[in-house]
Amino acid sequence: MRVLGIDPGLRNMGWGVIDVAGSRVSHVANGVCHSVGDDLGARLLSLFEQLTDVIHLYQPDTAAVEQTFVNKDGAGTLKLGQARGIAMLVPAQAGIPVGEYAPNAVKKAVVGVGHAEKHQVEHMVKLQLPGVKLAGADATDALAIAICHSYHARSANTLSRALAKATT
Amino acid sequence: MRVLGIDPGLRNMGWGVIDVAGSRVSHVANGVCHSVGDDLGARLLSLFEQLTDVIHLYQPDTAAVEQTFVNKDGAGTLKLGQARGIAMLVPAQAGIPVGEYAPNAVKKAVVGVGHAEKHQVEHMVKLQLPGVKLAGADATDALAIAICHSYHARSANTLSRALAKATT
Repeated sequence: MRVLGIDPGLRNMGWGVIDVAGSRVSHVANGVCHSVGDDLGARLLSLFEQLTDVIHLYQPDTAAVEQTFVNKDGAGTLKLGQARGIAMLVPAQAGIPVGEYAPNAVKKAVVGVGHAEKHQVEHMVKLQLPGVKLAGADATDALAIAICHSYHARSANTLSRALAKATT
Repeated sequence: MRVLGIDPGLRNMGWGVIDVAGSRVSHVANGVCHSVGDDLGARLLSLFEQLTDVIHLYQPDTAAVEQTFVNKDGAGTLKLGQARGIAMLVPAQAGIPVGEYAPNAVKKAVVGVGHAEKHQVEHMVKLQLPGVKLAGADATDALAIAICHSYHARSANTLSRALAKATT
């Protein structure tokens, strides 16, 4: 199973692709889409096109996007929401199911605690994906989201197989 | 000049198309896109597809989207932002310039005061677009946004012609 993780942002949108085989995860690619353009429409379009290219290139089976908002800042949350709309749309358009995880769920899955520091997340991503070269903080977060999604997908898979076994 | 106004929302996205000739505006069409689907990605995709159809059908020259956020509600603003991302993306993808107006600017342009009531906006939209049948409150707002945009575009046009005349 190939998983695409996306860390949405209007200026920089991180992405990371991993392969999952049983309990093993391995790195495929990671990067950051930078929005370009003079106005919001153009910037969103550039993110849309770059993310569409990533999906065409790496053909993930499933995707996951971080679920977050900026506390006490309506304008900031609106900007982030607009970018997140693109992050959710592009996999849906490619027919790929999209999971959503709160930042604390991602940290808990990758580091073991919900309030882990940035550098702890980076450390664990590097440990789980040996030899990975990280394209930046947003790409690191995107890989962490992909790893989190792989755990949840695996649990769901194990559960459904157990249930299938129990009923046969 | 044909103007598309969009009132973004995740559940219901209002749209309205008007034609502008000099100081005259006339109604072309209005409606509401309802998002369908089990998850956020599917819902955003359905809005994206419906709005793309509207643009293909009515071929507007320019578009305008309301600029708003939900005060003190991060989750609500994030949802709205996601829908708004789609509303900004679709015209940009069709190569149409997209204007943004705050709710108060729309009310001021259509009613004359920035804190007008909903029913005052509806009254003025009906007055300016005789015989219009409104598809709902979101479609009314979308037509108001289109009318607001036509005023601003006309002012900008008059200004640029005046400047061109002054320099020749």
